[in-house]
Amino acid sequence: MTIALPKGFRLATINAGFRQKERPDIAFAVSDTPAVAAAMFTQAAFVAAPVLVGREIMHSSPTVRGVLINTGHANASTGYDGLANCRETLRLTAKACNLDASEILPASTGIIGGQMKMHLWKNAIPGLAANLGSATVEDFANAMRTTDAFPKYSGAEVVTKDGTITLAGMAKGAGMICPNMATMLCVVLCDGAIEAGDWRAMLADAVAKTFNRVTVDGDTSTNDTVYALANGASGIRPDKDDLALVRDALEKILAELAYMLVQDGEGATKVLHITVTGAATEADAEKVARTVGHSQLVKTAMYGKDANWGRIVAAIGRSGASFQTKQVRLSLCGVELFQNEQPVDVDFDALLEEPLKGRDIAIDISLGNGSGAYTLLASDLTHKYVDINAAYRS
Amino acid sequence: MTIALPKGFRLATINAGFRQKERPDIAFAVSDTPAVAAAMFTQAAFVAAPVLVGREIMHSSPTVRGVLINTGHANASTGYDGLANCRETLRLTAKACNLDASEILPASTGIIGGQMKMHLWKNAIPGLAANLGSATVEDFANAMRTTDAFPKYSGAEVVTKDGTITLAGMAKGAGMICPNMATMLCVVLCDGAIEAGDWRAMLADAVAKTFNRVTVDGDTSTNDTVYALANGASGIRPDKDDLALVRDALEKILAELAYMLVQDGEGATKVLHITVTGAATEADAEKVARTVGHSQLVKTAMYGKDANWGRIVAAIGRSGASFQTKQVRLSLCGVELFQNEQPVDVDFDALLEEPLKGRDIAIDISLGNGSGAYTLLASDLTHKYVDINAAYRS
Repeated sequence: MTIALPKGFRLATINAGFRQKERPDIAFAVSDTPAVAAAMFTQAAFVAAPVLVGREIMHSSPTVRGVLINTGHANASTGYDGLANCRETLRLTAKACNLDASEILPASTGIIGGQMKMHLWKNAIPGLAANLGSATVEDFANAMRTTDAFPKYSGAEVVTKDGTITLAGMAKGAGMICPNMATMLCVVLCDGAIEAGDWRAMLADAVAKTFNRVTVDGDTSTNDTVYALANGASGIRPDKDDLALVRDALEKILAELAYMLVQDGEGATKVLHITVTGAATEADAEKVARTVGHSQLVKTAMYGKDANWGRIVAAIGRSGASFQTKQVRLSLCGVELFQNEQPVDVDFDALLEEPLKGRDIAIDISLGNGSGAYTLLASDLTHKYVDINAAYRS
Repeated sequence: MTIALPKGFRLATINAGFRQKERPDIAFAVSDTPAVAAAMFTQAAFVAAPVLVGREIMHSSPTVRGVLINTGHANASTGYDGLANCRETLRLTAKACNLDASEILPASTGIIGGQMKMHLWKNAIPGLAANLGSATVEDFANAMRTTDAFPKYSGAEVVTKDGTITLAGMAKGAGMICPNMATMLCVVLCDGAIEAGDWRAMLADAVAKTFNRVTVDGDTSTNDTVYALANGASGIRPDKDDLALVRDALEKILAELAYMLVQDGEGATKVLHITVTGAATEADAEKVARTVGHSQLVKTAMYGKDANWGRIVAAIGRSGASFQTKQVRLSLCGVELFQNEQPVDVDFDALLEEPLKGRDIAIDISLGNGSGAYTLLASDLTHKYVDINAAYRS
């Protein structure tokens, strides 16, 4: 799959040797001209140094020139030295590329608690600068990987009255919300000329509808970051109608990346599409969806291709959402299993044997209590998840 | 280990063939005389038929004569038929033993959603009645097992001025709070003569301090039930001081059983003792303890004997509790690892290599923000957990 790089951006990657030898572990994107930036960060109380620095830059710089990402070290729980190290990587990189350090947004992912190896950064940066322009969107996504089984990238072209605006998105994360290697990072590049206010609103909206509606293990990262840059290099300033098309394209890219995150949820074999309707409020619908999507027992049953739907009913029951138990209905892969507090009289094991072998599993829950709705994508819980996370640092 | 059966109780078990052939799957306890009863039930919205019937009996009968437990079928999500079946098992059992059905408390554990096999009940009940008096405390605990790796029972003798009061407790649950086979059930028998109000307050208090402070996977069951019967057969009516001793004995038994539940958390190899101090409130301390204790990443790291403490810091950070990040301190197995937002400069991998091989792992978190405290026992998350729960119904 080839995804076009939006105009006016150059990409570079390099292997600095932080943790792995076979793949690059630094990814750098530069805009030839100042770009409007939007950013979304983790809501956790302990946040990584690059999140603190990234927030500062977003507050102080109206535009930015680049995004610098490393894997191997999360640079989180690293205190004052971690902050100083983060700033030093920006300073060195900016110097090598004739940029200003205050115009480069940082992001890191990897082990929490260890300091970054600054001598490896110093060795790598001249090569990184020399590589600018040589990397593709796929290369960039590859360099962002940690436990990811595959690189995650997507793109879109928006045909406006005045020509084509190109967007590309690159993400990493084997798990939306995990506080370790599985941190979610995403960079979106766009060559449209878009006002900062519009671009930021568009990103916040798209993230709320996509990344914030997937879960692997319910853990929120110290490092989760989404950066989006729009540099105007296409020369196209979309009008209101075209802006709506850009918004749709951005949401489509993030939705594709979010699906890939769950598909690649550490060791995952399934993507559970949990749709809750008929809740008193959207918040109630979300409560139910998250309780089902976070239930280890539901997740292991789906991994085992086991139509053990009682575990789903039990999760609904302890979600804290308000409903009448008699009104609740549950379907799995389109087969209605439970209503009026009773099992539906079908041979559900036979009916579900084939559907449960698929990757995409639909869990539809109707609460019969209003019009609140929510959809969450969740992964299953597998032997490989335990493999990956029990031995992660070794 | 032999635990004395309190006076005036007779126990029976039998294999009805509900799911397994090698172990009894019905356990029945009868008091020769009416016993004061206390009960605690699950707080979930969807509850099993025996929980509904048990609540009715607790509301309508001042005393009870017995507790009837089955494994194999949870009799949950079974609607009207499930309720009728539950009542029928009580009616048949009462008839066979010359009791009144309204004096027998029911509890079930097993698969959610399937109806109980009533013909197997009918076949088994005459033998169950004939067996009364033949089973030991250990036999009873064995008959309560589902995925439990070992039977869970404990006892205590309280020496009062007037003689000895005996208590015995039997529990099942490989996981405190799981909505399936791993339901937690517990029966306590006591031959002291204790007022209903005192006995119920004592049980509520002991459950809050023990069973409610352990977690395996954060799932709450449709069936969780604790029944406690005090029949007075010792002839001893404890005074205020002796009552305090009975209270201590009850709490000790439940604490031992709660520890066993975590030790036997499905596939668990560790018991994590998560102690949070210095929180603004006890509720905040509990939030932090539960976020750490439910984190799949913390649980897999502990299984992997990996001192990956950054995952603990990340869990604290997303707990929602109020604190200053600079004040937070973390120790693992007595080794201080994190304070003032920075790692402590020790070779923690070397220091923790041996301690992390043990079964009991101390995680001590100080928030430096008040006097709220909470301790939670949690299990680790292992390959065997996935084995057990992915293939549970097969």
